[in-house]
This record gives sequence, C-alpha cells and structure tokens, in this order.
Amino acid sequence: MAKASDPTEALPLGGVIGVLGGGQLGRMLSVAASRLGLRCHIFEPGQDPPAGHVAHQVTTADYGDSSALVSFAKSVDVITYEFENVPADALDELESIAPIRPGRNALATSQDRIVEKQFLADLGLGVAPFAPVDDLSSLEQAIATIGTPAILKTRRFGYDGKGQVRISKDSDLDAALSSVAHAPAVLEGMIPFDSEISVIAARSTTGEVACFDPGQNIHIDGILATTTVPAPISDSVRTEALKAASQILEALDYVGVLGVELFVSGDDLLVNEIAPRVHNSGHWTQNGCVVDQFEQHIRAVAGWPLGNPARHSDVVMENLIGVEIDDVAALTTEAGVGIHVYGKAETKPGRKMGHINRLQR
Amino acid sequence: MAKASDPTEALPLGGVIGVLGGGQLGRMLSVAASRLGLRCHIFEPGQDPPAGHVAHQVTTADYGDSSALVSFAKSVDVITYEFENVPADALDELESIAPIRPGRNALATSQDRIVEKQFLADLGLGVAPFAPVDDLSSLEQAIATIGTPAILKTRRFGYDGKGQVRISKDSDLDAALSSVAHAPAVLEGMIPFDSEISVIAARSTTGEVACFDPGQNIHIDGILATTTVPAPISDSVRTEALKAASQILEALDYVGVLGVELFVSGDDLLVNEIAPRVHNSGHWTQNGCVVDQFEQHIRAVAGWPLGNPARHSDVVMENLIGVEIDDVAALTTEAGVGIHVYGKAETKPGRKMGHINRLQR
Repeated sequence: MAKASDPTEALPLGGVIGVLGGGQLGRMLSVAASRLGLRCHIFEPGQDPPAGHVAHQVTTADYGDSSALVSFAKSVDVITYEFENVPADALDELESIAPIRPGRNALATSQDRIVEKQFLADLGLGVAPFAPVDDLSSLEQAIATIGTPAILKTRRFGYDGKGQVRISKDSDLDAALSSVAHAPAVLEGMIPFDSEISVIAARSTTGEVACFDPGQNIHIDGILATTTVPAPISDSVRTEALKAASQILEALDYVGVLGVELFVSGDDLLVNEIAPRVHNSGHWTQNGCVVDQFEQHIRAVAGWPLGNPARHSDVVMENLIGVEIDDVAALTTEAGVGIHVYGKAETKPGRKMGHINRLQR
Repeated sequence: MAKASDPTEALPLGGVIGVLGGGQLGRMLSVAASRLGLRCHIFEPGQDPPAGHVAHQVTTADYGDSSALVSFAKSVDVITYEFENVPADALDELESIAPIRPGRNALATSQDRIVEKQFLADLGLGVAPFAPVDDLSSLEQAIATIGTPAILKTRRFGYDGKGQVRISKDSDLDAALSSVAHAPAVLEGMIPFDSEISVIAARSTTGEVACFDPGQNIHIDGILATTTVPAPISDSVRTEALKAASQILEALDYVGVLGVELFVSGDDLLVNEIAPRVHNSGHWTQNGCVVDQFEQHIRAVAGWPLGNPARHSDVVMENLIGVEIDDVAALTTEAGVGIHVYGKAETKPGRKMGHINRLQR
C-alpha cells in the first residue's frame, strides 16, 4: 500500500496506522480508528497488550529488533505513538520507511525537560524558573538561583511523578541526587498556583488547528485523579491557554493531538509540560464530544480534516487507579457514568486501570 | 475459564464473549465490550470480517465445522450473535458447551415470521393480518381472507426487504411464488400507517428491563435510511410502544438487546417484527447516550447490570448505503456528525457500509 508520504494526501478507508505502544492509549486509538474505517497495527514489546484486544494486528517485539521494526513499518501507511520515550534508533529505522506523526522535533522537544522549557520560553510563554543539574555543584548553583521549594526532575523518561523529588531548604542534596539516580536533571522552581488546567489541542497535515475546552486537573500522589470540564477559569485565561497551545502546535509544525498542562495563578499562566500524544486529561472527550481526542489524533495523523471539538456535555473524568478498578461493578448501576476499562492483566498500586466519565446535569 | 452457566453470575473483567457473525454489528459489539474490559471472540465463515479489525480473536470457519464450533465455544464464557439465522445444529453444538444469550426461544420465534406473528398476537399485541402460504392454492386462499394490497414474505431468512414481493389485485401469483423461490411464506396485509418507529429494549439476567427512546424510521427501497430520535409520537403511543417491548422481553425470558419495529397509525400500534439482537435503528445511541445499544447488549449477556438508557442528545442517524460511503470525506468537516465506518472490503449497491449520527441542536 502507498505510504502517506505526501502530507496533503489523506489515508483511504482501510488504511493502516502503526501505533508504537500497546497500552490504554493505543487501545483507545485503535477503537477510534475503527469508527473511521481505518485499522491499527500495534508494536509493543510486552505480552498481551491492552491495545491487542481491539487491534487489526499486533507485533510483539523489542524496539531493538530491527527486522521486526522494518516489517512493521512496511505494513502500515503512517506511524504514530502512545508514549514519547520511543528510542531514537528505532525511530530512525521506522522513519526511513513510513512517515512518523507527530514528527521527530515534537518528540525531541518533549523528551528532554530542559529542551522543552527552553522551547516554551523562546516562544515567550511563561514557564517556571529552571536550571540544569548534573551534579552536586550544579544543584547547589541552581538552588542559589531559583531558591526553594523546588523540584528536581530527571530530564528524560519521567511520568506520573516518577523521577521527581522535592527540594526544600533543609534537603539532603546527595540523597536527592541519588533519588533521581544521578541522571541528568533539571531543577524547577515551585511557583504557587491556583489550579492546573490542560488543553488538548490538535493540528492537521494542512495546518488546521482545533482545541477542546480546557479541563481542570487534580493530582493525587503525583498521578492525575480527576479532570473537570469546563475548567472554572476566566474567559481571558481560557483564551490565553488556547492561544499558547496553538502557538506550540505551529512552532513544532505539529500533526496530531498534543496535551498541554498549564498552571493558573490569577490571570497568569505558566506552561508546565507538553505531551506529544493523546493525554489522560483528554479522556473526558469520549463522553463529552462527538469527536473525541482519540479520533481527533487518528484524523490528524491520517491526513483527514479535524473534527469539531465542541462539547455537548459537561464531564468530570475520574481515573481508576490500582484497586479502584474493583469499583466498576458498583459504577455500572449509576446513571450518566461512561465506563472505560483498559483490559490490563494485572492490577498494581499506582497503575492506571481505567477511568470513568461522569456527565454533569 | 468458568462458563457463565449460573445466570446470576457476572462475567469478571477479562471475560470473553463469543460472537457469531463478524459484520458491522459484531464489530461494534467488540468495541463496546472493550470499554467494559471484556473481550470478544468472533466466529465468522467469511474472510477479513469487519469485526476482526477490533476483536481479541477470530475463528474463520463454517457453521458446519463441528470441531471449530467446539474450540470456539470452549474459549468463551458466553455466546451471543449478530444475526438471527444461525443454523440450529450449530447452536445445539455450541449450547452444550457455553450459554447462548439471547436464548434459543428468542431465536426460534424470530426466525420464522409465522411463529413470530402468532407469538405477538398471543400476547395481545396488534399485528397485521397474516396467513401461511405454501403453494398457489394457499396463496389464493390467503388473498381471499386478507385482501390486497398485501406482501408475500418468506417465513425465514428475510432481511432488508429481501425475499419479499408486493401482491396487488392484478399480480401474477405464479410469478410472485417464483420470486420467493417457492419457499414457505406468509402473506401479510398492508395496513396503512402514519410512521414506523422502533424500540431498542434490553433485559438483564436478573430480569431488569431498560428501553431507549423510540426512534422514527424511514426506509428507502426496503432498507433503513434514517432513524430520528425522539420520534414525533404522542406520550400515549410512546408508553404503549415501551410496554409492548417490555412484554415481549418478559414473555421470551429474554437476555440482551431486542429491536422491535412498530407501525403507528393515529394512536394505534402494530408490531411489525422483532430482531433478537442489536439493531440498525439503535445505532443513534452511540452518539445520543452514555451507554449505547452495543454496550447494553454486552452488559446483558455478560450478566452485568444494564446501563441507564437516558438520551443526552437528540440524533438523526443516516445509513451510508453502497457508494454513499464515499460521502465520508465531505462529512468529516461537518460539526456534530459522528462517523461510523464498517471496514467492509468491497462496496456493493444496497450494502450497508457505514452510518452517521447527526446531533440535533
């Protein structure tokens, strides 16, 4: 089948989208693709991936398996991913055969917290003060510049609060460096804020942009607990947030859905981080919009027009973490609750097992 | 894995539902099952079935392949179907291993138009006058009783207007019998009616009943073209229609979703036919309700509680028949349009290729 190498060419019905990663995001992407008559081929090292239950095809192989990567890339029209830490070598191999959307610059930017923050600052967007940390002396210097409290984060491979430690006035700095495994890191100033919101934004191959309404996020133990839509923010903050998201999309020449987390402080906004993929804080769109974030992402990477992001219902999304998945039985009897279970084989503490979307009357 | 032979036992997360038939209904059932953390195994004789693009497992085999039926039945917890004409021998084989929901009596009733009409009449529900036709003399006798215009229909295996011929005063009766291949048939009187509506109703293993709001159906060339919800009917007709559906569910000790088509004439209702499965006229629920007909059916056959059938949006469902599927590209840019493409390999005249749900503002 012809590759979608011409960016203006839309995938025909029956087209195949390769998805790197077979977790819940890949699963919900595959379901969304099916609505559009498109098929997903999942590439995932782990056995029995959740996405495999609803995928056209699954390749079980490591990202170092060159022949598996080549076969996979040859079997698809375009490649996307559900997580941003795909090894660069694998991407090089894949990209020589099929286009990768969103593009490599989006990945490179979001894979490294310092590159990301510098990119955002260069766009004129507000970010928390930050400084690179490689050792004790650069950590001490960063603390002198930024002050405390602050958060020390690994530059790469962090998610859901992992690879992070809080630094206060009396912190043991050696212990702090140990807790991030002495990996290249960044110290970020902790700016007081009223709330965290996120914008789920999308951009098409033709440069069209569409943003879902911002949602307000509550985290517990570093993991997203709830997203409430609409977020209780002023019109001007809403407008600024959407403008920031659009600006980021344009600057990255982005194709697909992007999650943008922002801190709101009065009328001020700081961009916390960006994720070059569908995002947990956009799951509410499944029950709040006709076209959800998963379909929006599939449309974009397939070269289709974006869907209208209008919200038909207000929603509170609640994650089901670890044993909270056992609440599903009770939740089935509640009215206005959309249930989304991820099909993971094993329940673990802190593991995202599912979510629900509560429609608000 | 334990079979769900105890009717009060709910399938656990990860449970497997066997689906007979791999068309669009099986496809959308499999997607719905995934939301609940359940998996679908599709049994389908044809190659590359639409449901296979989003299924956990696919068995490609004929209904006469006993060993394939046995392996299939052993791999699942419960069996359901997307079409009512599954051969009885296959069902016998399957039922000896895993429960079939909805049950055999629902199938037997709906597989034969005369059994079905007699069942409905015995419940005290209105039906068009009907008489069995096996040959020219019984056809002449039926016409004498019922009058013309009337419709001659095969007793079995009819759908989408196939196996039907209209009988008027001057019809060539030999030709009419030929056009239904001299199969056992029924002559039905054509009662003038204002509109056709359908009720998508569900019943759980514990006897709980839930009905979606009735939709109004428009057929073109014997194939459903649109369903509009809510149907423009009086409260009393609405109440009578829901009562009729509930009565049918109870009488059949039914488990799953049932489609009931009714003719409305003023304040009078006639039941046209019932389908023991998810139904084309219930596709609007995908974009109008939190729990759609597909999830409702999966919940029921899995022994889970039914979802609340409340409608959050008014919807007009439009089928995409044959080359109408080519309209999808234009439809992607319209706001409030939910697109559902079936992934069929070949477009044919009269073939259902997809549908859209238009939200009404």
